[in-house]
Amino acid sequence: MVIQKEITLPAFERGCHLITHHINKAFDNLPDQGLLNIFLRHTSAGLCINENADPTVRQDFNSFFDKLVPENLSFYKHVYEGPDDITAHLKTAITGQSLNIPVRAQKIALGTWQGIYLCEFRNNGGRRKILLTCITH
Amino acid sequence: MVIQKEITLPAFERGCHLITHHINKAFDNLPDQGLLNIFLRHTSAGLCINENADPTVRQDFNSFFDKLVPENLSFYKHVYEGPDDITAHLKTAITGQSLNIPVRAQKIALGTWQGIYLCEFRNNGGRRKILLTCITH
Amino acid sequence: MVIQKEITLPAFERGCHLITHHINKAFDNLPDQGLLNIFLRHTSAGLCINENADPTVRQDFNSFFDKLVPENLSFYKHVYEGPDDITAHLKTAITGQSLNIPVRAQKIALGTWQGIYLCEFRNNGGRRKILLTCITH
Repeated sequence: MVIQKEITLPAFERGCHLITHHINKAFDNLPDQGLLNIFLRHTSAGLCINENADPTVRQDFNSFFDKLVPENLSFYKHVYEGPDDITAHLKTAITGQSLNIPVRAQKIALGTWQGIYLCEFRNNGGRRKILLTCITH
Repeated sequence: MVIQKEITLPAFERGCHLITHHINKAFDNLPDQGLLNIFLRHTSAGLCINENADPTVRQDFNSFFDKLVPENLSFYKHVYEGPDDITAHLKTAITGQSLNIPVRAQKIALGTWQGIYLCEFRNNGGRRKILLTCITH
Repeated sequence: MVIQKEITLPAFERGCHLITHHINKAFDNLPDQGLLNIFLRHTSAGLCINENADPTVRQDFNSFFDKLVPENLSFYKHVYEGPDDITAHLKTAITGQSLNIPVRAQKIALGTWQGIYLCEFRNNGGRRKILLTCITH
């Protein structure tokens, strides 16, 4: 069986944001066992799984990704929309934008410390669309 | 239901290449709803999803990945086949080589600006094999 | 059909380790066709697929990831548990911790040179839990 839902997130500031609750509330019932694919239909924001408790992890993520993929490198061509244009695409290639998480006992089977991050890499990315696909018995 | 197909891509030059059409033409019919796994059976080329329109994105990807994973670092050991040997393995670990994309209304449900990239990290990678697995009702 | 199993790996030293055999021995029988999700329920260790033969690839991975994500950057805040704290989270975001691999002919359909790596990014990460979910007919 395949269950599919599309959700639209609120607009987020540039940076990493916990969105686990947005995913959880999209489903009235999750199955006993299955696999959930979370697919962000964009090329300048990413998804990843990381620490769900201390907000300094997300602050360090922002600082680190800005250092790893610096703006204004001399060879960049795709900067038509500003210095956060190509860098957002590059950061997205590094984190990815499609997550697969098992479903168990009617829940997304995240580990104790795991949360789902939306990594908004644009200064004004606007509202992002996510397509959720749950595969089950 | 599981539908599985193997395709062999043409040999590509080092760099990022749009291969969405190669994936689309592998299937006569895609189901109404499902999940498609695209699995590259190699360790020195990657897959990612990014901008499908402007070719400068792919040019910037090539320049950036060469900067991020420089050739000829003094500590590299696995360079038996040349300076593009270990660097291709490392770049593959960063992008990944397994994509999961939802299927909806008989189509791969990519966003408007999303395309599938083969990132060929070797100078002469040759023809690459992809195993496609579609899970549906 | 969904088959789900949880395994606990032995504790590994910091570094990349081949764990393909741990995954293979978790299943008595794999189906003819399907998709296997391998989900590490942690935020400071990653999973990736790379070269299964020469151990120097894994040594170079360790050296490179330490260079890519240096310890002791001045802006890090989340270093309560030592210099390998935030860096382990960041490396995990780069490699990811959820793999999808096709199943074919009762086997995980890895390419000839592909193996599954556990990337232990902590100095003392301890035993790591993996949830395996196989989707089939």
